[in-house]
Amino acid sequence: MDEQAELGRYDRGLEILRRLAGEDEPAVTRDFTDIAPDLGRLTVEFPYGDVYHRSELDLRERQLATIGGLAALGYALPQLRFHIAGALNIGCSRREIVEAIMHLASYTGFPAVLNAITVAKDVFASRDDDEPGYADAAPEPEGSRYERGWKALAEIDGHAGEAVIENLQSIAPDLGRYIIEFAFGDLYVRGGLDLRSREIVTIAACTALGSALPQLKVHIHGLLNVGGTREEVVETILQMAVYAGFPAALNAMNAAKEVFADRD
Amino acid sequence: MDEQAELGRYDRGLEILRRLAGEDEPAVTRDFTDIAPDLGRLTVEFPYGDVYHRSELDLRERQLATIGGLAALGYALPQLRFHIAGALNIGCSRREIVEAIMHLASYTGFPAVLNAITVAKDVFASRDDDEPGYADAAPEPEGSRYERGWKALAEIDGHAGEAVIENLQSIAPDLGRYIIEFAFGDLYVRGGLDLRSREIVTIAACTALGSALPQLKVHIHGLLNVGGTREEVVETILQMAVYAGFPAALNAMNAAKEVFADRD
Amino acid sequence: MDEQAELGRYDRGLEILRRLAGEDEPAVTRDFTDIAPDLGRLTVEFPYGDVYHRSELDLRERQLATIGGLAALGYALPQLRFHIAGALNIGCSRREIVEAIMHLASYTGFPAVLNAITVAKDVFASRDDDEPGYADAAPEPEGSRYERGWKALAEIDGHAGEAVIENLQSIAPDLGRYIIEFAFGDLYVRGGLDLRSREIVTIAACTALGSALPQLKVHIHGLLNVGGTREEVVETILQMAVYAGFPAALNAMNAAKEVFADRD
Repeated sequence: MDEQAELGRYDRGLEILRRLAGEDEPAVTRDFTDIAPDLGRLTVEFPYGDVYHRSELDLRERQLATIGGLAALGYALPQLRFHIAGALNIGCSRREIVEAIMHLASYTGFPAVLNAITVAKDVFASRDDDEPGYADAAPEPEGSRYERGWKALAEIDGHAGEAVIENLQSIAPDLGRYIIEFAFGDLYVRGGLDLRSREIVTIAACTALGSALPQLKVHIHGLLNVGGTREEVVETILQMAVYAGFPAALNAMNAAKEVFADRD
Repeated sequence: MDEQAELGRYDRGLEILRRLAGEDEPAVTRDFTDIAPDLGRLTVEFPYGDVYHRSELDLRERQLATIGGLAALGYALPQLRFHIAGALNIGCSRREIVEAIMHLASYTGFPAVLNAITVAKDVFASRDDDEPGYADAAPEPEGSRYERGWKALAEIDGHAGEAVIENLQSIAPDLGRYIIEFAFGDLYVRGGLDLRSREIVTIAACTALGSALPQLKVHIHGLLNVGGTREEVVETILQMAVYAGFPAALNAMNAAKEVFADRD
Repeated sequence: MDEQAELGRYDRGLEILRRLAGEDEPAVTRDFTDIAPDLGRLTVEFPYGDVYHRSELDLRERQLATIGGLAALGYALPQLRFHIAGALNIGCSRREIVEAIMHLASYTGFPAVLNAITVAKDVFASRDDDEPGYADAAPEPEGSRYERGWKALAEIDGHAGEAVIENLQSIAPDLGRYIIEFAFGDLYVRGGLDLRSREIVTIAACTALGSALPQLKVHIHGLLNVGGTREEVVETILQMAVYAGFPAALNAMNAAKEVFADRD
């Protein structure tokens, strides 16, 4: 790791950050030069020079994961604003961003979703492009909410998801029913965002929450069940080290280790 | 679950939401129609049409639980503003709301309490009703803080609470003393909010925190010890699925399951 | 605990609070008198009259711990503003405060750090003292980031830290490398804040996060390895009862108990 390689981290980080920011001098590189002159450099080097530069997820997936993690933290609205605009700048559609945020209602509850969607609305309004706001409401999917939800849960989360519902029967069967109907029958089956992306967003959010490790394990199974790879699981968690810290990423990585061992 | 029943969820949800909002077209039903046209409907149907409509807690208790959960999240101040006003609109007194928020200082620490009480102050000031702000400071309860606190802890949390204090003796006995004096001797014994409501608020806050499961278990015992029912425990946790997500509710429900088994 | 002793708690708490606030009537003693007349008194008595008055940490260390805990909570920006100013008022340097916040990037991720440093920038700008903003960027430490990081990790966290890296080899070795290079090679080895203070900040942040107990244990070892005492570990955790609540402090105290037993 010679001098040249060190320079490389900053330069390649800045290249990605510029694409996200849509400007040559992103704010984080200049806002704190007077009180914390190294902070801009460190924010470019590790998050963007090291993590974003990795090939295991593409930039679109990283932005969806980041939006999931930041929305789940709840307090990270300035960063969410930057990364929603960043997602648009690198080619995510408004619909994908809105779907990723709405998808979180199951994992974070409604307040985090409503605050994030308010930020998204502001970001969309600030852009003078012609992309339609969203088009029409999604058509109601076929079948009863319970039936289509149970089918989706079984396909996506498999035995791990079914065990969650089973475990509730003796204490709160209605909570199980709401998970089937709302999380799966209302949200998972919506169009506008593919299942693999929905699971990446879910893994990011559960990692950032920190206290959702049992549910994270269910959705690591979920990503693998809908065609994702172990490398994508690991990479989504690793990316959360940037936004939620190493402890959150380490605990999530241990959860992934257990799931991988279960499946072997 | 035919078409009629689906319509029913929205309509009955809107009825409750209108009572809380004090207006015919609550903001959430119209704010996001351009970018997320289904979000308003989903926010009416599951939280209000499904959960709020249940009979295991009355509306006043649901609002106190919601205030407890939202204040504990810390970042959910816009929603806290709505639900403090909502609590007033459905008949909670200012004193009850203030007591519910102050009660949280033991569980969330002071920053969450100070930010929530600042929101309450704004909401109170925005109303032109004649309800007195709060009346006088509560009279100092009888006995030393330690003595009355220890008595309250033993009565409310019982053996589970005493075990917490005992466990601290070898490492931080003063922390145990502060719990007795401040959490119980200062806060629990205040008037203005009954013990059952205080435990509902506590269960809601510990569920929303996510990382307070051992303490949640103590206070599930607490609610049952002061006359609450298992149905109320389950219902308070279920309501937090709306505000803190299914993972928080699921982990709390497992804690409840363990407590119920312990008591059988 | 007679009347005199009770008065004593308020008076001695107010004395410390006045030093932090730099004014005779700190806002918390007057802002809520109309709606919650006891809240100001309770905020003076327990946090400042009981906890801050203890001798196991000095006021400078308490402020750094508080900044660490409040920044980790993410939502506590008004309180962070007060306590950054408070830290300056009792003699912390701007550099120490900036270093404490930047140090957190490993534990909270970047959003919490960027939001906290933005508050620090505002506080610094609002003061008309002559203290230089920060001086120059820190000189690049010697050796490769990996080498100096690994050396720092081994010295500070010892076997507990090495076990974290080892545990990642089979699933995400690059995450281990980033911890070595960024958390230790970039951050721990910076000047401007001594290692003991860095570990106090880390313990405060991991306690406040709530879901970082395995990492908290590593850094309890860390504080003891760099010359801190068990009393300082206990005291840092106890102080977080004020800012993150008793559940966070209780769970962290159990972690400390396990670490102390391991080392005996």
